[in-house]
Amino acid sequence: MKKLVISTGGGDAPGLNAVIYAVVNAAHSRGWEVYGSRSGYLGLLDPEQLVPLTPAVVADITPTGGTILGSTNKGNPFAMPVRNLAGDYQIHDVSDRIMKNFQRMGFYCHIAVGGDGSLEIAHRFAKEKGMPVVGVPKTIDNDLQATQRTFGFDTAVSTATEALDKLHSTAKSHDRVMVVEVMGRDSGWIALNSGISGGADVILIPEIPFDIQSVCEKISDNELHDKHYAIVVVAEGARAANHEVVTQGTGEVGRAEALLGGIGLWVANMIRTCTEKDTRSLVLGHLQRGGTPTTFDRLLALRFGAAAVRLAEAGEFDHMVALATPDMVAVPLEQAIKSRKKVPLSSDKIMTAREIGICLGE
Amino acid sequence: MKKLVISTGGGDAPGLNAVIYAVVNAAHSRGWEVYGSRSGYLGLLDPEQLVPLTPAVVADITPTGGTILGSTNKGNPFAMPVRNLAGDYQIHDVSDRIMKNFQRMGFYCHIAVGGDGSLEIAHRFAKEKGMPVVGVPKTIDNDLQATQRTFGFDTAVSTATEALDKLHSTAKSHDRVMVVEVMGRDSGWIALNSGISGGADVILIPEIPFDIQSVCEKISDNELHDKHYAIVVVAEGARAANHEVVTQGTGEVGRAEALLGGIGLWVANMIRTCTEKDTRSLVLGHLQRGGTPTTFDRLLALRFGAAAVRLAEAGEFDHMVALATPDMVAVPLEQAIKSRKKVPLSSDKIMTAREIGICLGE
Amino acid sequence: MKKLVISTGGGDAPGLNAVIYAVVNAAHSRGWEVYGSRSGYLGLLDPEQLVPLTPAVVADITPTGGTILGSTNKGNPFAMPVRNLAGDYQIHDVSDRIMKNFQRMGFYCHIAVGGDGSLEIAHRFAKEKGMPVVGVPKTIDNDLQATQRTFGFDTAVSTATEALDKLHSTAKSHDRVMVVEVMGRDSGWIALNSGISGGADVILIPEIPFDIQSVCEKISDNELHDKHYAIVVVAEGARAANHEVVTQGTGEVGRAEALLGGIGLWVANMIRTCTEKDTRSLVLGHLQRGGTPTTFDRLLALRFGAAAVRLAEAGEFDHMVALATPDMVAVPLEQAIKSRKKVPLSSDKIMTAREIGICLGE
Amino acid sequence: MKKLVISTGGGDAPGLNAVIYAVVNAAHSRGWEVYGSRSGYLGLLDPEQLVPLTPAVVADITPTGGTILGSTNKGNPFAMPVRNLAGDYQIHDVSDRIMKNFQRMGFYCHIAVGGDGSLEIAHRFAKEKGMPVVGVPKTIDNDLQATQRTFGFDTAVSTATEALDKLHSTAKSHDRVMVVEVMGRDSGWIALNSGISGGADVILIPEIPFDIQSVCEKISDNELHDKHYAIVVVAEGARAANHEVVTQGTGEVGRAEALLGGIGLWVANMIRTCTEKDTRSLVLGHLQRGGTPTTFDRLLALRFGAAAVRLAEAGEFDHMVALATPDMVAVPLEQAIKSRKKVPLSSDKIMTAREIGICLGE
Repeated sequence: MKKLVISTGGGDAPGLNAVIYAVVNAAHSRGWEVYGSRSGYLGLLDPEQLVPLTPAVVADITPTGGTILGSTNKGNPFAMPVRNLAGDYQIHDVSDRIMKNFQRMGFYCHIAVGGDGSLEIAHRFAKEKGMPVVGVPKTIDNDLQATQRTFGFDTAVSTATEALDKLHSTAKSHDRVMVVEVMGRDSGWIALNSGISGGADVILIPEIPFDIQSVCEKISDNELHDKHYAIVVVAEGARAANHEVVTQGTGEVGRAEALLGGIGLWVANMIRTCTEKDTRSLVLGHLQRGGTPTTFDRLLALRFGAAAVRLAEAGEFDHMVALATPDMVAVPLEQAIKSRKKVPLSSDKIMTAREIGICLGE
Repeated sequence: MKKLVISTGGGDAPGLNAVIYAVVNAAHSRGWEVYGSRSGYLGLLDPEQLVPLTPAVVADITPTGGTILGSTNKGNPFAMPVRNLAGDYQIHDVSDRIMKNFQRMGFYCHIAVGGDGSLEIAHRFAKEKGMPVVGVPKTIDNDLQATQRTFGFDTAVSTATEALDKLHSTAKSHDRVMVVEVMGRDSGWIALNSGISGGADVILIPEIPFDIQSVCEKISDNELHDKHYAIVVVAEGARAANHEVVTQGTGEVGRAEALLGGIGLWVANMIRTCTEKDTRSLVLGHLQRGGTPTTFDRLLALRFGAAAVRLAEAGEFDHMVALATPDMVAVPLEQAIKSRKKVPLSSDKIMTAREIGICLGE
Repeated sequence: MKKLVISTGGGDAPGLNAVIYAVVNAAHSRGWEVYGSRSGYLGLLDPEQLVPLTPAVVADITPTGGTILGSTNKGNPFAMPVRNLAGDYQIHDVSDRIMKNFQRMGFYCHIAVGGDGSLEIAHRFAKEKGMPVVGVPKTIDNDLQATQRTFGFDTAVSTATEALDKLHSTAKSHDRVMVVEVMGRDSGWIALNSGISGGADVILIPEIPFDIQSVCEKISDNELHDKHYAIVVVAEGARAANHEVVTQGTGEVGRAEALLGGIGLWVANMIRTCTEKDTRSLVLGHLQRGGTPTTFDRLLALRFGAAAVRLAEAGEFDHMVALATPDMVAVPLEQAIKSRKKVPLSSDKIMTAREIGICLGE
Repeated sequence: MKKLVISTGGGDAPGLNAVIYAVVNAAHSRGWEVYGSRSGYLGLLDPEQLVPLTPAVVADITPTGGTILGSTNKGNPFAMPVRNLAGDYQIHDVSDRIMKNFQRMGFYCHIAVGGDGSLEIAHRFAKEKGMPVVGVPKTIDNDLQATQRTFGFDTAVSTATEALDKLHSTAKSHDRVMVVEVMGRDSGWIALNSGISGGADVILIPEIPFDIQSVCEKISDNELHDKHYAIVVVAEGARAANHEVVTQGTGEVGRAEALLGGIGLWVANMIRTCTEKDTRSLVLGHLQRGGTPTTFDRLLALRFGAAAVRLAEAGEFDHMVALATPDMVAVPLEQAIKSRKKVPLSSDKIMTAREIGICLGE
């Protein structure tokens, strides 16, 4: 009877629990056992943080947000900050300890669910320590080249689109410009998908440095067509082409501070000045990471989980599962973690946006 | 055949269109005509801004947010800023012009849907100019003493609760404190209702000046019970008892600036400092005013609209409709606009919150 | 330290878990213990079916549907069908055994959450056996005279209204009549509230025996106003005034059979025959009892739970909690279980429906 | 300036209005005009049924269900039933009249949105009459081989999954079996996707004739694992392998009658008999076709619409747009209408279902 250990690492993404559900049940149907490692690798560092996962334990978790295992940004096992007796942090490489525990527990395979950081660590464990690892990709931004889709993305886009739906009526009734900052530091997928679906007038994405003048003209142009309001969607990583915008960081670390000067606020202020229109801004932030996963994300996450166990059974380690519609495929981790997927400027989504009259800040 | 004119004034509240729907259809079933005045009183100032409202025109508007008539904060007809040829604003009293148009159009009654500002103006028209007016109360904050409920409130609370639901999973998975600022400058109804329903650990409302120390203790205390995250709901009008918190205004005018220093951000920063926990803040803002009204709000708004036409038919002018469960009643406008409804500290909601372990900052 | 036992009986209603949450936490904040009795009184019959309920156990249950204790229609402890060794059922009075267990466990009070059946049994325990009982009313139909509202009702109405929203677009696009059967065997509250909110053309409720001819005329009349579709909401207990409609039962027991001949189907068939319009019918059934409770229902259920512990503390037994807006009050169980609340034909909801053009089958 | 005409045909699918929105705006951005043909080809038969579609007309339609043009099952223009003076129907070929009107109006291209029936007619017009036609595929069942996805499907699956979510809690609380019949006469996509996502115990699809004995065993087996309830999802086209099930038709025509004996009810009755468990059944029916399209469906429909105008511009007639992730491609209509997409028994979705413990009736 084989024993698996599963960990979830990095930021939250709706569907993590569905992956766990599928891994546990797909293992169970083969007569295997599954343990969950709390807080990323912590369970492998300290076996008290390992939890037996049975079908009964995971029975109702598929529709829930978050992860029952807890995630971690607490550090890389190859360079882990550990507090010593004096209270200072020192960097330790705890990878050997983890590998030793892995072997002592008799694990057959480690299923690592995580973003590029977590998958890179998983790959190092595979390559340097010989750990049999299967990866499951997780990025809410959908910015991995190696898989057509990642779970969590559809939920994030849905949450953003629902927010746009709500803002339409109030913007329209009050002749306002509403600027909404959504996730996407390096790629504009969430902004683009939600902006097109949610009827935005302007969508600003990292892939297209924007001209604030064009944005203001679009909004003023609306007036000529008797439309006295506008919805502007801004990816947090969008940047002006011809202004140096000093914002105070909108990264994961320090979101609260980001409110002091995210790009959305800057855009709102510029629009207010240029157009003299009543302009408000809103940062969706963590709302996009939470809640019940959509049906699409549940199904994708469940398929990923089941496929990961299939890879494990086949001994196809150091690979991650990926979607190549309509199939599940295996991609070498080394290759998967290298290439990010930006919005191609020639994609039909960009063409659609332009053709239906959305300004992309050009 | 009688002719009514209806106007909607002030901030957005889900259910405005349901009021219009009911007024139009209840008038139609009596063989009356209805006109809508665009942008508050503008339609009575400039009859080109009057729109005939038939059942066909309003057929599908009940489930929609916003108001098909547009709202206005553009000013009080008794002291209206009007731009002269030189481009300067001067204050004019246009109330007589409005009353003259009202009579010239042969209107039987004006149904004024609005907040305390709009209703006070409606009352002045009734008292000083003899306009037959029926009021329909609109305040998303549910802070009118004269009616048990106002429409829009249930939708706002639902939106806030859904946001809390989403934040729970991510807070829990990542051991975080999430601070959510909701509407409520003078009263804590939205914060209290959503916070209790949404499982908040802390709820801060204007009626109870809070001690930030108590808040931090509550969060640290969670840790002792093996709960490593917390949800904090803060009404925008909440204030610390023993700190002078300088925020840059969170009022309707200038919401965008509010993000620079709302009370939610201040609370988040204090909690981060005290507890050393990863703490994020979020301002729900206009999300709470938009979108499809809940069933509760639709029904209440439809009942208000139908009852307003009933008052008009009975000639009970200078009154507004109000809910006194299970009945619709008429309240003199003069009395209605005077008294605000704060959360009574002896209410069972406050007791419930305390008894189920929620910290109110005391 | 006092010990409470809580049970949930009868049909499902969203909000049951919120009641349990509040009871457990409100007791905990007083230093009391709470036990849950599985499957109604089963836990008091067989102490192995008692579960200790701590704040940790109930931490996340408020937003969930169903009841963690399981409900029961398995019978009245005063006349319980018990299977003997031969496999036959015999009726036993097990009330003394239950009372003995109650005392042996040292319980201070039994909080009984249930419908009229369960509350009547609770009252008999109080009166005949001297059990200290506090009741919490539960009826998804909102048909208790003694409380203005019961939890679960708002969720059921919301589910029905959402279904009507979905059916509008398809009915309109395809010129169809859609007939929707909703819950309500004796009272029309769900049909009336959802029908008004959801833009129904016709609402048929048990309180108003309907004339199918009027219904068909209303639908044909729509055509004259260039409206080629209609939505008809039928309470399962609605009955034709001038036809003997033989349906095969739409009660709780045997819902599946109900599909063979519910009143909704009969109405649909009659409309199709009369109007020659493409007419479809749908039974919402158990969808109305499930799912996440609305904010309104969560708050009401939490208030009920906390108030029940307050009654227990005050020793106000043989009473149930009730809503008398804005207060929580105590009503003697004997009085509460007697009087049902039907839709008063003079209520403003009925007036509103008629005035905005809805046909009530008259 | 080119003129397009657009029609929507066949059953309802959420996203139809988004297609119209994109076609109108993408044409407008090229300086073209668009007319909508009401009720399928009716607008081309009777130019009074043609409506000019401007960006202002379609401004708010993207999030709405249904189609602003009305659909039709009223017949094939090549064999149209037309009522003569005596009131009898006679079959006429009106295709030449349509083609003549098309030319007289000076249309450049006809964008035909529809299912296989409508697309086949479009293809005949292209081939036999030389009409320049571009197709947009519409099938809520997602059963076209030529495109990876069709719009409306994601919304239908989401509605079904939400229904399953609601039924879980009540099934669990009351130890019940809930049988839910979903759409899918020839293919099991909706049943399979919603059943996996919604945590079904059993999924029965047309592609796998089921053994009712296996179904009952699965449910009884649940009891051994202390799970006393079950959710069974049945596609309307599922059939028992070893029983002749006589149902009274669950096709589009005559849905109301279907309730008299759909396959879901038969399965429920069999399960009740075999397992002696309390078993209920529910037919979701038209709920699956209605309502606001999901973000996924809106985006896909908007891309389809914009791509259709691109095909028109390129003169690539007698083709339809299709999704080949991540691209939009053109597929010859002749080829597209031929091949249906059934669930491949070797697909990883089927494997996933089996591996996570779902019974497929085998």
